[in-house]
Amino acid sequence: MTATHDTARRDFASDNYAGVHPEVMDLLAEANGGHQVAYGDDEWTARLQDVLRRQFGSAALGYPVFNGTGANVLSLQSMLPRWGAVVCADSAHINTDENGAPERVGGLKLLTTPSPDGKLTPELVARQAWGWGDTHRAQPGVVSITQATELGTVYTPQEIRDLADQAHSLGMRLHLDGSRLANAAASLGVPLRALTTDVGVDVLSLGGTKNGLMMGEAVVVLDPEAVTGIDYLRKLDMQLASKMRFVSAQLVALFDGDLWQRSASHANAMAARLSEGARAVAGVRITQPTQSNAVFAVLPPGAADRLREYRRFYDWNPATGEVRWMCAFDTTPQDVDDFLDALRAAVA
Amino acid sequence: MTATHDTARRDFASDNYAGVHPEVMDLLAEANGGHQVAYGDDEWTARLQDVLRRQFGSAALGYPVFNGTGANVLSLQSMLPRWGAVVCADSAHINTDENGAPERVGGLKLLTTPSPDGKLTPELVARQAWGWGDTHRAQPGVVSITQATELGTVYTPQEIRDLADQAHSLGMRLHLDGSRLANAAASLGVPLRALTTDVGVDVLSLGGTKNGLMMGEAVVVLDPEAVTGIDYLRKLDMQLASKMRFVSAQLVALFDGDLWQRSASHANAMAARLSEGARAVAGVRITQPTQSNAVFAVLPPGAADRLREYRRFYDWNPATGEVRWMCAFDTTPQDVDDFLDALRAAVA
Amino acid sequence: MTATHDTARRDFASDNYAGVHPEVMDLLAEANGGHQVAYGDDEWTARLQDVLRRQFGSAALGYPVFNGTGANVLSLQSMLPRWGAVVCADSAHINTDENGAPERVGGLKLLTTPSPDGKLTPELVARQAWGWGDTHRAQPGVVSITQATELGTVYTPQEIRDLADQAHSLGMRLHLDGSRLANAAASLGVPLRALTTDVGVDVLSLGGTKNGLMMGEAVVVLDPEAVTGIDYLRKLDMQLASKMRFVSAQLVALFDGDLWQRSASHANAMAARLSEGARAVAGVRITQPTQSNAVFAVLPPGAADRLREYRRFYDWNPATGEVRWMCAFDTTPQDVDDFLDALRAAVA
Amino acid sequence: MTATHDTARRDFASDNYAGVHPEVMDLLAEANGGHQVAYGDDEWTARLQDVLRRQFGSAALGYPVFNGTGANVLSLQSMLPRWGAVVCADSAHINTDENGAPERVGGLKLLTTPSPDGKLTPELVARQAWGWGDTHRAQPGVVSITQATELGTVYTPQEIRDLADQAHSLGMRLHLDGSRLANAAASLGVPLRALTTDVGVDVLSLGGTKNGLMMGEAVVVLDPEAVTGIDYLRKLDMQLASKMRFVSAQLVALFDGDLWQRSASHANAMAARLSEGARAVAGVRITQPTQSNAVFAVLPPGAADRLREYRRFYDWNPATGEVRWMCAFDTTPQDVDDFLDALRAAVA
Repeated sequence: MTATHDTARRDFASDNYAGVHPEVMDLLAEANGGHQVAYGDDEWTARLQDVLRRQFGSAALGYPVFNGTGANVLSLQSMLPRWGAVVCADSAHINTDENGAPERVGGLKLLTTPSPDGKLTPELVARQAWGWGDTHRAQPGVVSITQATELGTVYTPQEIRDLADQAHSLGMRLHLDGSRLANAAASLGVPLRALTTDVGVDVLSLGGTKNGLMMGEAVVVLDPEAVTGIDYLRKLDMQLASKMRFVSAQLVALFDGDLWQRSASHANAMAARLSEGARAVAGVRITQPTQSNAVFAVLPPGAADRLREYRRFYDWNPATGEVRWMCAFDTTPQDVDDFLDALRAAVA
Repeated sequence: MTATHDTARRDFASDNYAGVHPEVMDLLAEANGGHQVAYGDDEWTARLQDVLRRQFGSAALGYPVFNGTGANVLSLQSMLPRWGAVVCADSAHINTDENGAPERVGGLKLLTTPSPDGKLTPELVARQAWGWGDTHRAQPGVVSITQATELGTVYTPQEIRDLADQAHSLGMRLHLDGSRLANAAASLGVPLRALTTDVGVDVLSLGGTKNGLMMGEAVVVLDPEAVTGIDYLRKLDMQLASKMRFVSAQLVALFDGDLWQRSASHANAMAARLSEGARAVAGVRITQPTQSNAVFAVLPPGAADRLREYRRFYDWNPATGEVRWMCAFDTTPQDVDDFLDALRAAVA
Repeated sequence: MTATHDTARRDFASDNYAGVHPEVMDLLAEANGGHQVAYGDDEWTARLQDVLRRQFGSAALGYPVFNGTGANVLSLQSMLPRWGAVVCADSAHINTDENGAPERVGGLKLLTTPSPDGKLTPELVARQAWGWGDTHRAQPGVVSITQATELGTVYTPQEIRDLADQAHSLGMRLHLDGSRLANAAASLGVPLRALTTDVGVDVLSLGGTKNGLMMGEAVVVLDPEAVTGIDYLRKLDMQLASKMRFVSAQLVALFDGDLWQRSASHANAMAARLSEGARAVAGVRITQPTQSNAVFAVLPPGAADRLREYRRFYDWNPATGEVRWMCAFDTTPQDVDDFLDALRAAVA
Repeated sequence: MTATHDTARRDFASDNYAGVHPEVMDLLAEANGGHQVAYGDDEWTARLQDVLRRQFGSAALGYPVFNGTGANVLSLQSMLPRWGAVVCADSAHINTDENGAPERVGGLKLLTTPSPDGKLTPELVARQAWGWGDTHRAQPGVVSITQATELGTVYTPQEIRDLADQAHSLGMRLHLDGSRLANAAASLGVPLRALTTDVGVDVLSLGGTKNGLMMGEAVVVLDPEAVTGIDYLRKLDMQLASKMRFVSAQLVALFDGDLWQRSASHANAMAARLSEGARAVAGVRITQPTQSNAVFAVLPPGAADRLREYRRFYDWNPATGEVRWMCAFDTTPQDVDDFLDALRAAVA
C-alpha cells in the first residue's frame, strides 16, 4: 500500500495491469546518470542491438518504440508502399483494438479473414492474397499473424514456416505481432528465434510491456530488405523516444538473460492452473485451449458479474457470456486459488 | 560508470541527453507493485488530475502521452477539423523537427511566418490568419506558440494574452507548445498558470522529459470546449500508454511540489552562467538573449569543432557558424566552468 | 467507326464501357459558351439544385464530384469524425474496388460483414455496430449500403427503412452508394426518393457515369445535419471541378426529366433478356437474381474464354468460374441475341 | 443566351470561367459511341500517348486525371516516399490554393520559401534543400515550380535547367506544375518540351482546363525512374476516370495539333493588350511583368469595386489593393477594350 494505490491487489483483467519486474527497475536505475546521446545513439541502445542479435540472429536490427500499436504500425508501414494491404485474421489486434491506427496513421488497408481460433492458415490467407496488378485492389504485400494470438492460442514453428513460405512464394512478407511472443516461446519451450528468424518471419513487433516492462516494445527487422525508411517513419509516427536509453535498458533487462522466459513461463503456468481449476467447476466451459497466459471461459448467467466483485476481468463476447482471464508475471498461485474459490462461490 | 555507460559525463547538446531526476525515480518505484487498471483508469492518473488542477485551474484536464511530438499532434488534431490549419513561426518545432508528423499523421496544414526571435506577435499572426470561408484555403483555426521558444526566448504573460485575445477575436484557439514551459516560468518567476490558464491559452503541450523525466508529457486541456474526441485521438495517434500509471507518476513527481521549478531554475542559472562567461571571450558572440536554458553563440571558424572534442553540442546554423548549448537539470557549475575553459582554449 | 475507335462494337463488361447519351451531349453543348463562375457558383449548378430538390425533397443539397470513389469518400468523411467507422458488406465497392481510398484518403475504418447477396440486414449490421465509448475501437458512425448492390440485387424500400431505423436508433447515419440507384429504382418502378429520402437515407452518392454520363456523380445530402465541412472536404479531396457547370449540366440532363429512368430501364431490360436467354442454355447457371443491369453466371469450364473472343466481360470469381455480364443504356436487343448465340456456341 | 446562362458575357476573373473550345467539343463527340475499355485501356488514351510522346519525347508517359490539384498531388506522391518533402515558393498553388491536399491526402511536407515574383532560384531552393539523413527533418526530395507562375511570370528554359541541375546534383527531382505551361511556351515562342523534357524536368502536371478543356489534366512522366506506383496512386487518389477516353480525347484535341498554342497565344495577347491599356491609365500601377495571360495591378481606392460592377475579377492582396485580371482563350479584343473603358470610368 502506497499513499496512492494498493500494491497487494492483483486482478485477472490484463497483463497490462501488472507493474514492472524488479530486475527491470534495477536496470532502469543503472541506465540513469550522466548524459547519453538522445534519439537512439546511446550506449544502451547499442547494447540492445547485441542482445537482439544474440536472440534473433546476426541480421536482426531493433527499433525501440513506445507501445504495441506503434510497433505494429511502424512495422507494417515500413514493409508496404502507399498502395499496400495486410492480410490478417479478423480478430487481429491491428484490426480490432487500435482504433484504426493502421489505416488512419499508416494509410494501410487490412484484408481480413475469419478465423475460429485466431490463427491464420495458408488456406485462409489465400482468400485475400490475390489481385496483384489490379489498380482497383489494395495490393496484398504482408501477411500479419499474432503469436500468441488474441485468443491465447499458439502457432507451432511449422505453422509459421508454412505461412512464411506461402507469403514469400507470392512475393509477400510475413509480419509477426509478438506482443506475447515470450509467452508463446515459453509455452512451446523453444527459443524466440525458433518462432521468428528460423521460420521465415521478416519483421517482428517484439513485446515487452505485457511481460513486465514499464513501457517499451521494439520493431525487430529480421530481413533488412523487408523494410524501407524505418528510421524516418519511427520519427514521423511519433514513436522516437528522446531518452531512448530507458526504453532500450528495459528491453535489455528482459532479453539479455532469461527474464523473458522466466516471467512468461510463470504467467503461462498460472493460466494453466486457473484453466484446470475452472474446468473442474460445474457450469464453467473453457472455450479455447490454454496455451499461453490467457483463459477464455463461458460462465453461467450472472456468475461473471458476481465474480467481478472480487477481482476485475473483461467480457470477451457479451453475446455468449464468454470472459477472458489474464495472468501476469506477478500473479501468484495463491491469487489463482483465491480466484477459483471466488469462482466456485459465484457459480454456486 | 556502469558496465554500459559513463555516468559522470555531461554534455551541452540537449536537455534530452540528461537522465532522470532521483525524485522521479523514487516515485516510479512507489508507483510499482500490484495491479492498476490499464490505459488511464488508474489511481496515479487520477492523482495527476488533482495536481494539474492545482497548477492550471479547476477546468484543467490532462492526457498523458509519450513524447512531445505526440503531445503537439494530439493537441492540434483535437482542436481542428480535417480542413483546419495552424499558424506558427517557421522556427516552430512542429514545423522543423517532427518530420512532418503534424501534416502526415495529423492531416494538418501549417501556415508559417518568419520570426527573428522565434516569437509570434499579433502582426505576424495576421499575415496568415485570414481566408475563412474560402474553400481553397486551409482554414486557420489555431495559433501555436512555443514557450520557451526554440531560440531560448521567453514570452511575457502580456505577450501571450495579446495573442490569445487576437486568436479568440478571430474565432481561433491558442495552443502552447510547453516542452520547456517550466524554464520559461522559472525564468520569469511566475507560476505555470500565469503563462497559460490566466492569459487565455486553450490547450497546452506540457513538457516533462526535457526537465528530468524518463519519458512523459501531457496534453493539458484548459478550455474543454477547445477539443473534440481527444480520448479517441490519443489512442489512434498511438500515444495511449497501457501502463499509464508510470507516465502519470513521473508527472506527479514533477508538478505535485516544486521539482519542476527547482530543476528549471537550475538549468536556467547554468545557461546564464555559461552565457555570461562566453560573452566575455573575445571572438564569441551571443546571438539571442539567454532567457531560459539555451545559449546561442557564433564562434570563430574552427572553434566549434575543437570545442566539440571536449563535449558534444549541435550546430544551429552551419551557414553562419551559430551553435546551440543547452543546460539541463543536472548540469553543474563546475561543468560550465570547465566548458568555458575549453571554449577559451578552442577560441585561442 | 471514327479514326480512333470502332463506334459499332458494344461489350458486356461494364456500364463504364459505354459512352455518353446523346441528350447529355446536347446539354453539354448548351452549357458551353460565355463565362460562368468557377468552382460551383455557376447557373447550371444552381439549376441542378432545383432538379435535385424535385427528385429528393426540399432539403436535398447536391455536391457534384468527378467519380464514384470521390462521392463515397466525400460522403463518408463528411459524416464521420476522425475516429469514425463504417459498417458495410465485405463485397461493398468501398471495401473491394477503391484501393483503400476510404482508409487512405478518408482516414476511415471499414467494419465489414459477409453477405451472400451483397445486401446488409439489421442482423448483419449488429455484428459490427457496437463498442461506442471504447477508445480502442473505431467508433461505428455510419452504415453504408449499395443500391443496386455489387451483385445486382436490389433492396426494397422497406429493407432500407429497416436499416435506417436501426442506424438512427443507434445514433448512426445511413449512407447509400447509389452508383446504380437509377437501375434499382427502375427495377422497382419507384421514384428515386422512394429508395432514399422517404426511407431514411441521410447521404447519397448519386451515380451518373454508369447511366450514360461522360463523367460526373454527386454527393446528395438529404439530412443537412448528417454532414460537416463538406465544402472544404470536396476541395481537399480533390473533387472540386473548376468548370463545374459541365458536371452539373450532365446531371441536369439525367435527372431533370426521365432520362435516368429510360436509360436504366432499358439496361435492366437488356439484362433480363440476357439472363432469361442464358438460363435456357444447358450448362449455364445464373447465380444471383437479375434485378438490375447485371447478370452473374457460372459457365462450363473453358466456355468463358471462348465467349470472350466474341465480346469482353469480366470474371467475378475465378475460383468458381463465375462471370459478370453488364448491360448499358446503349445495349441493343440484337447485341443480347448475338451474345446469346455466341454463348450457345461457346458452351456447346 | 441559353435557358440557363448568358453565353455572351465574359469576365476577367479566371481562365476557369471560360467554357470549352469548339474543337474540343468536336473531338468529344467523335470519341463518343460504341464501347471502349474503361479506366484507361481505351484507344483514345493510347492515341494520347502518341501525342504526348510527340510533344515531350519518346520516354513521356501520360496519366490523365480530373483536375490540377489531382495532377499535383499524384505527381508529388509518386515522386516521394512517405517521409519526403517538397521545396516550393510560398506563393505556389500547392501551398496556397489546394486546402492542404498535398499534406492531407498526399502526406507530404511542403518546405516553402518566399519569392517576390513567384519564381524559385537555386539560391532560394538552397534555403530549404538540406538536412538529408536527419530523421527529424522531412527529407527534401522534390523541387516544385509553376510555369507560368501564380504571378503570371515565366521561367526561361535556362532558369529551369539551372533548377533541374541543382535538384539532380542533390539527388532530388524537379516537378513542374504546368497548369499554364501552354501560356508560358506561347509567351516564349518555344515548344512545350523546351520548358520540360529538354531542360531536365522529371514530372509534369500538364494543364488543360485553363486552356479551353472541359475538365482534364495529365501527369506526364518524363523520366520513368522518377515515379513509383503511379497507377495505383491515381486510383487511390480518386483521380482515375472510368470513361477515360473522354479525358484523353480532350487532351488529344489540345495537343495533337497546335490548338494549345493558338489558344494560349491569344489569351496572352489579350493580357498584353489589357496590361498596356491599363498602364496608360493614371492611378493604375501594373505590379508584375505581363508575361502570360494574367495582369496584376494596383488600383486607386474604391476603383476595384466600381469596376467589378461591370465585370468580375478577384482581389489578389486586399491589404495593398492589388487585383488580378485573367484573360482566356475566348477573351476578345472588344472585351478588353470595353473593360479598359470601364476601368477608366472607375478610376476617374
